[in-house]
Amino acid sequence: MDEELLTGQAEYLEAGMHIGTKTKTPGMKRFIYKVREDGLYLLDLAVIDQRIRDAARMLAAYDPDKIVVTASRIYAISAVEKFAEITKVRFLSGRVMPGVFTNPNRADFTEPEILLVSDTRNERQAIREAKKTNIPTISTCDTDNWVKFVDLIIPCNNKGRRAIALTYFLLAREFLKAKGEIKSNDEFHYSLADFEAKMEIKAR
Amino acid sequence: MDEELLTGQAEYLEAGMHIGTKTKTPGMKRFIYKVREDGLYLLDLAVIDQRIRDAARMLAAYDPDKIVVTASRIYAISAVEKFAEITKVRFLSGRVMPGVFTNPNRADFTEPEILLVSDTRNERQAIREAKKTNIPTISTCDTDNWVKFVDLIIPCNNKGRRAIALTYFLLAREFLKAKGEIKSNDEFHYSLADFEAKMEIKAR
Repeated sequence: MDEELLTGQAEYLEAGMHIGTKTKTPGMKRFIYKVREDGLYLLDLAVIDQRIRDAARMLAAYDPDKIVVTASRIYAISAVEKFAEITKVRFLSGRVMPGVFTNPNRADFTEPEILLVSDTRNERQAIREAKKTNIPTISTCDTDNWVKFVDLIIPCNNKGRRAIALTYFLLAREFLKAKGEIKSNDEFHYSLADFEAKMEIKAR
Repeated sequence: MDEELLTGQAEYLEAGMHIGTKTKTPGMKRFIYKVREDGLYLLDLAVIDQRIRDAARMLAAYDPDKIVVTASRIYAISAVEKFAEITKVRFLSGRVMPGVFTNPNRADFTEPEILLVSDTRNERQAIREAKKTNIPTISTCDTDNWVKFVDLIIPCNNKGRRAIALTYFLLAREFLKAKGEIKSNDEFHYSLADFEAKMEIKAR
Protein backbone atom coordinates (compact mmCIF):
# COMPACT_ATOMS: atom_id res chain seq x y z
CA MET A 1 0.00 0.00 0.00
CA ASP A 2 1.07 3.56 -0.55
CA GLU A 3 2.42 5.28 2.51
CA GLU A 4 1.36 8.72 1.38
CA LEU A 5 -2.18 9.96 1.39
CA LEU A 6 -3.76 11.54 -1.68
CA THR A 7 -3.91 14.85 0.15
CA GLY A 8 -2.63 16.13 3.49
CA GLN A 9 -4.12 14.62 6.59
CA ALA A 10 -4.92 18.17 7.72
CA GLU A 11 -6.94 18.75 4.55
CA TYR A 12 -8.87 15.54 5.09
CA LEU A 13 -9.60 16.38 8.71
CA GLU A 14 -10.54 19.96 7.93
CA ALA A 15 -13.04 18.75 5.35
CA GLY A 16 -14.43 16.36 7.94
CA MET A 17 -13.99 13.41 5.57
CA HIS A 18 -13.94 10.96 8.46
CA ILE A 19 -16.94 12.35 10.37
CA GLY A 20 -19.77 9.86 10.21
CA THR A 21 -23.21 9.96 11.76
CA LYS A 22 -24.67 8.64 15.01
CA THR A 23 -26.03 5.63 13.19
CA LYS A 24 -24.06 2.66 11.98
CA THR A 25 -25.32 0.03 9.60
CA PRO A 26 -23.99 -3.54 9.70
CA GLY A 27 -22.33 -3.09 6.30
CA MET A 28 -20.43 0.00 7.37
CA LYS A 29 -19.19 -1.34 10.68
CA ARG A 30 -15.94 -2.56 9.16
CA PHE A 31 -14.94 0.97 8.16
CA ILE A 32 -15.58 2.60 11.54
CA TYR A 33 -12.58 2.92 13.78
CA LYS A 34 -14.15 4.56 16.81
CA VAL A 35 -17.10 6.37 18.27
CA ARG A 36 -16.52 9.93 19.45
CA GLU A 37 -17.69 11.14 22.86
CA ASP A 38 -20.58 12.94 21.25
CA GLY A 39 -21.75 9.68 19.75
CA LEU A 40 -20.57 10.24 16.19
CA TYR A 41 -18.99 7.29 14.48
CA LEU A 42 -15.65 8.10 12.89
CA LEU A 43 -14.29 6.53 9.71
CA ASP A 44 -10.70 5.50 9.14
CA LEU A 45 -8.84 8.09 7.02
CA ALA A 46 -6.37 5.62 5.55
CA VAL A 47 -9.25 3.51 4.33
CA ILE A 48 -11.11 6.46 2.85
CA ASP A 49 -7.94 7.41 1.00
CA GLN A 50 -7.36 3.93 -0.29
CA ARG A 51 -10.92 3.38 -1.42
CA ILE A 52 -10.89 6.63 -3.40
CA ARG A 53 -7.87 5.28 -5.26
CA ASP A 54 -9.54 1.91 -5.79
CA ALA A 55 -12.74 3.48 -7.06
CA ALA A 56 -10.90 5.80 -9.44
CA ARG A 57 -8.92 2.89 -10.85
CA MET A 58 -11.99 0.76 -11.26
CA LEU A 59 -13.89 3.55 -13.01
CA ALA A 60 -10.92 4.31 -15.24
CA ALA A 61 -11.18 0.82 -16.69
CA TYR A 62 -14.38 1.94 -18.46
CA ASP A 63 -15.07 4.42 -21.24
CA PRO A 64 -16.36 7.67 -19.75
CA ASP A 65 -19.55 7.46 -21.77
CA LYS A 66 -20.23 4.02 -20.26
CA ILE A 67 -20.03 5.40 -16.72
CA VAL A 68 -23.06 6.93 -15.04
CA VAL A 69 -22.72 8.97 -11.87
CA THR A 70 -25.71 10.05 -9.83
CA ALA A 71 -26.32 12.69 -7.18
CA SER A 72 -29.49 13.90 -5.61
CA ARG A 73 -28.65 16.22 -2.76
CA ILE A 74 -27.57 19.77 -3.29
CA TYR A 75 -23.94 19.52 -2.13
CA ALA A 76 -23.38 16.33 -4.05
CA ILE A 77 -24.95 17.71 -7.20
CA SER A 78 -22.42 20.56 -7.36
CA ALA A 79 -19.49 18.26 -6.75
CA VAL A 80 -20.63 15.52 -9.10
CA GLU A 81 -21.49 18.00 -11.83
CA LYS A 82 -17.88 19.20 -11.78
CA PHE A 83 -16.62 15.64 -11.59
CA ALA A 84 -18.66 14.68 -14.65
CA GLU A 85 -17.57 17.76 -16.58
CA ILE A 86 -13.88 16.97 -16.01
CA THR A 87 -14.03 13.22 -16.51
CA LYS A 88 -16.66 13.26 -19.30
CA VAL A 89 -18.77 10.62 -17.57
CA ARG A 90 -22.55 10.78 -17.74
CA PHE A 91 -24.30 12.57 -14.90
CA LEU A 92 -27.85 11.81 -13.82
CA SER A 93 -28.99 14.49 -11.44
CA GLY A 94 -31.89 14.10 -9.06
CA ARG A 95 -34.21 11.17 -8.90
CA VAL A 96 -33.42 8.35 -11.31
CA MET A 97 -36.57 7.00 -12.88
CA PRO A 98 -37.40 3.31 -13.18
CA GLY A 99 -36.42 1.96 -16.58
CA VAL A 100 -33.70 4.44 -17.34
CA PHE A 101 -31.16 1.61 -17.78
CA THR A 102 -33.64 -1.01 -18.95
CA ASN A 103 -36.38 0.53 -21.04
CA PRO A 104 -35.16 1.54 -24.52
CA ASN A 105 -38.40 3.43 -25.10
CA ARG A 106 -37.51 6.04 -22.54
CA ALA A 107 -36.08 9.30 -23.88
CA ASP A 108 -33.41 9.25 -21.20
CA PHE A 109 -32.54 5.58 -21.77
CA THR A 110 -28.86 4.83 -21.29
CA GLU A 111 -26.85 1.63 -20.92
CA PRO A 112 -23.97 2.23 -18.57
CA GLU A 113 -21.40 -0.45 -17.79
CA ILE A 114 -20.72 0.85 -14.29
CA LEU A 115 -22.50 3.14 -11.83
CA LEU A 116 -21.19 5.60 -9.25
CA VAL A 117 -23.69 6.68 -6.65
CA SER A 118 -23.35 9.40 -4.01
CA ASP A 119 -25.97 8.22 -1.54
CA THR A 120 -27.59 4.82 -1.36
CA ARG A 121 -30.77 6.13 0.23
CA ASN A 122 -31.54 8.98 -2.11
CA GLU A 123 -30.34 7.17 -5.17
CA ARG A 124 -31.76 3.77 -4.37
CA GLN A 125 -33.63 3.70 -7.65
CA ALA A 126 -30.34 4.04 -9.53
CA ILE A 127 -28.99 1.11 -7.53
CA ARG A 128 -32.11 -0.91 -8.38
CA GLU A 129 -31.61 -0.18 -12.06
CA ALA A 130 -27.96 -1.20 -11.84
CA LYS A 131 -28.95 -4.39 -10.09
CA LYS A 132 -31.43 -5.19 -12.85
CA THR A 133 -28.71 -4.86 -15.45
CA ASN A 134 -26.10 -6.36 -13.11
CA ILE A 135 -23.50 -3.68 -13.64
CA PRO A 136 -21.01 -3.02 -10.81
CA THR A 137 -21.99 -0.25 -8.45
CA ILE A 138 -19.65 2.01 -6.53
CA SER A 139 -21.04 4.30 -3.85
CA THR A 140 -19.78 6.82 -1.35
CA CYS A 141 -21.30 5.60 1.90
CA ASP A 142 -21.59 7.26 5.26
CA THR A 143 -21.82 5.25 8.48
CA ASP A 144 -25.62 5.27 8.22
CA ASN A 145 -25.88 4.04 4.64
CA TRP A 146 -27.21 0.64 3.69
CA VAL A 147 -24.73 -1.06 1.39
CA LYS A 148 -26.89 -3.72 -0.22
CA PHE A 149 -26.03 -4.16 -3.90
CA VAL A 150 -23.03 -1.84 -3.62
CA ASP A 151 -19.96 -3.56 -4.96
CA LEU A 152 -17.26 -1.09 -4.00
CA ILE A 153 -17.90 1.11 -0.98
CA ILE A 154 -16.08 4.42 -0.57
CA PRO A 155 -16.56 5.08 3.13
CA CYS A 156 -16.74 8.82 3.75
CA ASN A 157 -18.79 11.71 4.98
CA ASN A 158 -21.29 12.07 2.15
CA LYS A 159 -23.27 14.76 3.92
CA GLY A 160 -20.80 17.62 4.42
CA ARG A 161 -20.20 20.24 1.75
CA ARG A 162 -16.40 20.25 2.02
CA ALA A 163 -16.11 16.50 2.43
CA ILE A 164 -18.20 15.81 -0.66
CA ALA A 165 -16.22 18.35 -2.66
CA LEU A 166 -12.93 16.80 -1.59
CA THR A 167 -14.15 13.29 -2.42
CA TYR A 168 -15.03 14.17 -6.01
CA PHE A 169 -11.99 16.42 -6.40
CA LEU A 170 -9.75 13.46 -5.54
CA LEU A 171 -11.83 11.01 -7.57
CA ALA A 172 -11.60 13.24 -10.65
CA ARG A 173 -7.85 13.74 -10.26
CA GLU A 174 -7.11 10.06 -9.68
CA PHE A 175 -9.41 9.12 -12.56
CA LEU A 176 -7.52 11.33 -15.01
CA LYS A 177 -4.22 9.97 -13.71
CA ALA A 178 -5.41 6.39 -14.09
CA LYS A 179 -6.58 7.21 -17.61
CA GLY A 180 -3.16 8.66 -18.38
CA GLU A 181 -4.70 12.03 -19.25
CA ILE A 182 -2.57 13.78 -16.67
CA LYS A 183 0.78 12.57 -15.37
CA SER A 184 0.85 14.22 -11.96
CA ASN A 185 -1.25 16.21 -9.52
CA ASP A 186 0.37 19.43 -10.81
CA GLU A 187 -1.37 18.94 -14.14
CA PHE A 188 -4.79 18.91 -12.50
CA HIS A 189 -5.90 22.50 -12.91
CA TYR A 190 -8.87 22.56 -10.59
CA SER A 191 -9.27 23.63 -7.01
CA LEU A 192 -11.38 22.18 -4.24
CA ALA A 193 -13.55 25.29 -4.49
CA ASP A 194 -14.54 24.26 -8.02
CA PHE A 195 -16.29 21.24 -6.53
CA GLU A 196 -17.97 23.02 -3.66
CA ALA A 197 -21.60 24.04 -3.70
CA LYS A 198 -21.76 27.80 -3.71
CA MET A 199 -23.41 29.27 -0.66
CA GLU A 200 -25.65 31.93 -2.03
CA ILE A 201 -26.74 34.71 0.25
CA LYS A 202 -29.99 35.84 -1.16
CA ALA A 203 -31.03 39.45 -0.89
CA ARG A 204 -34.53 39.78 0.43
CA MET B 1 -23.25 -3.72 -22.54
CA ASP B 2 -21.63 -5.98 -25.06
CA GLU B 3 -23.98 -8.15 -26.99
CA GLU B 4 -21.44 -10.91 -27.46
CA LEU B 5 -20.35 -13.27 -24.76
CA LEU B 6 -16.67 -13.89 -24.03
CA THR B 7 -17.06 -17.43 -25.26
CA GLY B 8 -19.82 -19.40 -26.94
CA GLN B 9 -22.94 -20.05 -24.95
CA ALA B 10 -22.47 -23.74 -25.70
CA GLU B 11 -19.03 -23.66 -24.14
CA TYR B 12 -20.37 -21.98 -21.03
CA LEU B 13 -23.20 -24.46 -20.70
CA GLU B 14 -20.96 -27.43 -21.36
CA ALA B 15 -18.62 -26.30 -18.60
CA GLY B 16 -21.62 -25.95 -16.31
CA MET B 17 -20.67 -22.37 -15.48
CA HIS B 18 -24.22 -21.55 -14.46
CA ILE B 19 -24.90 -24.63 -12.34
CA GLY B 20 -25.17 -23.60 -8.70
CA THR B 21 -25.93 -25.65 -5.63
CA LYS B 22 -29.11 -26.48 -3.73
CA THR B 23 -28.35 -23.73 -1.23
CA LYS B 24 -28.76 -20.05 -1.78
CA THR B 25 -27.33 -17.36 0.47
CA PRO B 26 -29.01 -13.96 0.76
CA GLY B 27 -26.06 -12.27 -0.95
CA MET B 28 -26.21 -14.54 -3.97
CA LYS B 29 -29.97 -14.36 -4.49
CA ARG B 30 -29.63 -11.47 -6.92
CA PHE B 31 -27.56 -13.57 -9.35
CA ILE B 32 -29.90 -16.57 -9.40
CA TYR B 33 -32.35 -16.64 -12.24
CA LYS B 34 -34.18 -19.85 -11.52
CA VAL B 35 -34.31 -23.08 -9.63
CA ARG B 36 -34.13 -26.26 -11.63
CA GLU B 37 -36.54 -29.16 -11.09
CA ASP B 38 -33.88 -31.09 -9.23
CA GLY B 39 -33.53 -28.20 -6.79
CA LEU B 40 -30.31 -26.73 -8.11
CA TYR B 41 -30.18 -22.97 -8.31
CA LEU B 42 -29.03 -21.68 -11.68
CA LEU B 43 -26.99 -18.56 -12.27
CA ASP B 44 -27.52 -16.10 -15.09
CA LEU B 45 -24.97 -16.64 -17.89
CA ALA B 46 -25.01 -13.06 -19.09
CA VAL B 47 -24.17 -11.89 -15.59
CA ILE B 48 -21.37 -14.42 -15.17
CA ASP B 49 -19.92 -13.22 -18.45
CA GLN B 50 -20.18 -9.58 -17.51
CA ARG B 51 -18.70 -10.00 -14.07
CA ILE B 52 -15.67 -11.83 -15.47
CA ARG B 53 -15.06 -8.78 -17.67
CA ASP B 54 -15.55 -6.42 -14.72
CA ALA B 55 -13.21 -8.39 -12.48
CA ALA B 56 -10.51 -8.60 -15.15
CA ARG B 57 -10.70 -4.87 -15.73
CA MET B 58 -10.58 -4.10 -12.04
CA LEU B 59 -7.59 -6.39 -11.52
CA ALA B 60 -5.81 -4.94 -14.53
CA ALA B 61 -5.77 -1.55 -12.82
CA TYR B 62 -3.16 -2.96 -10.42
CA ASP B 63 0.43 -4.08 -10.86
CA PRO B 64 0.54 -7.86 -11.04
CA ASP B 65 2.88 -8.07 -8.06
CA LYS B 66 0.33 -6.13 -6.00
CA ILE B 67 -2.39 -8.67 -6.76
CA VAL B 68 -2.79 -11.79 -4.64
CA VAL B 69 -4.95 -14.69 -5.79
CA THR B 70 -5.85 -17.59 -3.53
CA ALA B 71 -7.14 -21.09 -4.07
CA SER B 72 -7.51 -23.97 -1.69
CA ARG B 73 -9.39 -26.73 -3.43
CA ILE B 74 -7.74 -29.04 -5.90
CA TYR B 75 -9.56 -27.94 -9.07
CA ALA B 76 -9.12 -24.29 -8.24
CA ILE B 77 -5.44 -24.71 -7.43
CA SER B 78 -4.69 -26.01 -10.93
CA ALA B 79 -6.65 -23.26 -12.61
CA VAL B 80 -5.35 -20.45 -10.43
CA GLU B 81 -1.77 -21.65 -10.73
CA LYS B 82 -2.04 -21.30 -14.49
CA PHE B 83 -3.79 -17.95 -14.14
CA ALA B 84 -0.99 -16.66 -11.89
CA GLU B 85 1.72 -17.97 -14.19
CA ILE B 86 0.23 -16.16 -17.20
CA THR B 87 -0.71 -12.92 -15.47
CA LYS B 88 2.33 -12.78 -13.12
CA VAL B 89 0.13 -12.13 -10.11
CA ARG B 90 1.03 -13.65 -6.74
CA PHE B 91 -0.54 -16.98 -5.90
CA LEU B 92 -1.16 -18.16 -2.35
CA SER B 93 -2.10 -21.80 -2.44
CA GLY B 94 -3.84 -23.60 0.39
CA ARG B 95 -4.71 -22.13 3.72
CA VAL B 96 -3.75 -18.48 4.18
CA MET B 97 -2.25 -17.92 7.61
CA PRO B 98 -3.24 -15.05 9.89
CA GLY B 99 -0.85 -12.14 9.58
CA VAL B 100 0.29 -12.83 6.06
CA PHE B 101 -0.86 -9.35 4.93
CA THR B 102 -0.33 -7.63 8.29
CA ASN B 103 2.67 -9.06 10.11
CA PRO B 104 5.98 -7.96 8.55
CA ASN B 105 7.82 -10.51 10.68
CA ARG B 106 6.32 -13.40 8.78
CA ALA B 107 8.53 -14.96 6.12
CA ASP B 108 5.55 -15.05 3.74
CA PHE B 109 4.53 -11.45 4.49
CA THR B 110 3.13 -9.65 1.46
CA GLU B 111 1.21 -6.39 1.01
CA PRO B 112 -1.22 -6.80 -1.85
CA GLU B 113 -3.41 -3.94 -3.03
CA ILE B 114 -6.21 -6.23 -4.19
CA LEU B 115 -7.25 -9.82 -3.54
CA LEU B 116 -8.89 -12.43 -5.75
CA VAL B 117 -10.40 -15.38 -3.91
CA SER B 118 -11.80 -18.59 -5.35
CA ASP B 119 -14.02 -19.70 -2.46
CA THR B 120 -15.18 -17.56 0.44
CA ARG B 121 -15.52 -20.52 2.78
CA ASN B 122 -12.18 -22.19 2.29
CA GLU B 123 -10.32 -18.93 1.93
CA ARG B 124 -12.09 -17.01 4.65
CA GLN B 125 -8.79 -16.27 6.37
CA ALA B 126 -7.55 -14.51 3.22
CA ILE B 127 -10.73 -12.42 3.24
CA ARG B 128 -10.16 -11.58 6.91
CA GLU B 129 -6.63 -10.46 6.15
CA ALA B 130 -7.89 -8.33 3.26
CA LYS B 131 -10.50 -6.79 5.51
CA LYS B 132 -7.84 -5.90 8.08
CA THR B 133 -5.85 -4.06 5.44
CA ASN B 134 -9.01 -2.81 3.74
CA ILE B 135 -8.01 -3.82 0.24
CA PRO B 136 -10.76 -4.61 -2.26
CA THR B 137 -11.69 -8.26 -2.53
CA ILE B 138 -13.00 -10.03 -5.60
CA SER B 139 -14.32 -13.57 -5.31
CA THR B 140 -15.84 -16.23 -7.48
CA CYS B 141 -18.99 -17.18 -5.57
CA ASP B 142 -21.35 -20.07 -6.00
CA THR B 143 -25.00 -19.86 -4.91
CA ASP B 144 -24.05 -21.22 -1.47
CA ASN B 145 -21.22 -18.78 -0.73
CA TRP B 146 -21.40 -16.07 1.89
CA VAL B 147 -20.42 -12.77 0.35
CA LYS B 148 -19.57 -10.72 3.41
CA PHE B 149 -16.57 -8.48 2.79
CA VAL B 150 -16.49 -9.38 -0.89
CA ASP B 151 -16.49 -6.23 -2.97
CA LEU B 152 -16.91 -7.64 -6.44
CA ILE B 153 -18.70 -10.97 -6.79
CA ILE B 154 -18.15 -13.17 -9.82
CA PRO B 155 -21.16 -15.47 -9.64
CA CYS B 156 -20.26 -18.88 -11.06
CA ASN B 157 -19.91 -22.55 -10.41
CA ASN B 158 -16.75 -22.60 -8.33
CA LYS B 159 -16.96 -26.32 -7.64
CA GLY B 160 -16.80 -27.92 -11.09
CA ARG B 161 -13.50 -28.74 -12.74
CA ARG B 162 -14.43 -27.43 -16.19
CA ALA B 163 -16.27 -24.40 -14.87
CA ILE B 164 -13.34 -23.33 -12.70
CA ALA B 165 -10.93 -23.81 -15.58
CA LEU B 166 -13.10 -21.74 -17.90
CA THR B 167 -13.44 -18.96 -15.33
CA TYR B 168 -9.69 -18.50 -14.93
CA PHE B 169 -9.05 -19.03 -18.63
CA LEU B 170 -11.36 -16.12 -19.40
CA LEU B 171 -10.07 -14.03 -16.50
CA ALA B 172 -6.47 -14.48 -17.68
CA ARG B 173 -7.31 -13.63 -21.28
CA GLU B 174 -9.37 -10.56 -20.39
CA PHE B 175 -6.71 -9.44 -17.91
CA LEU B 176 -3.99 -9.51 -20.58
CA LYS B 177 -6.29 -7.67 -22.99
CA ALA B 178 -7.09 -5.01 -20.39
CA LYS B 179 -3.37 -4.65 -19.70
CA GLY B 180 -2.75 -4.21 -23.43
CA GLU B 181 -0.40 -7.20 -23.47
CA ILE B 182 -2.47 -8.92 -26.12
CA LYS B 183 -4.74 -7.21 -28.61
CA SER B 184 -7.19 -9.98 -29.36
CA ASN B 185 -8.25 -13.44 -28.31
CA ASP B 186 -6.16 -14.91 -31.11
CA GLU B 187 -3.01 -13.81 -29.36
CA PHE B 188 -3.88 -15.77 -26.24
CA HIS B 189 -1.93 -18.98 -26.76
CA TYR B 190 -3.49 -21.14 -24.09
CA SER B 191 -6.26 -23.67 -24.14
CA LEU B 192 -8.92 -24.47 -21.62
CA ALA B 193 -7.12 -27.74 -20.95
CA ASP B 194 -4.12 -25.79 -19.64
CA PHE B 195 -6.31 -24.59 -16.77
CA GLU B 196 -7.94 -27.90 -15.98
CA ALA B 197 -6.85 -30.12 -13.12
CA LYS B 198 -5.38 -33.26 -14.58
CA MET B 199 -7.29 -36.37 -13.70
CA GLU B 200 -4.60 -38.85 -12.82
CA ILE B 201 -5.40 -42.49 -13.02
CA LYS B 202 -3.05 -44.07 -10.59
CA ALA B 203 -1.75 -47.57 -11.22
CA ARG B 204 -2.20 -49.71 -8.16
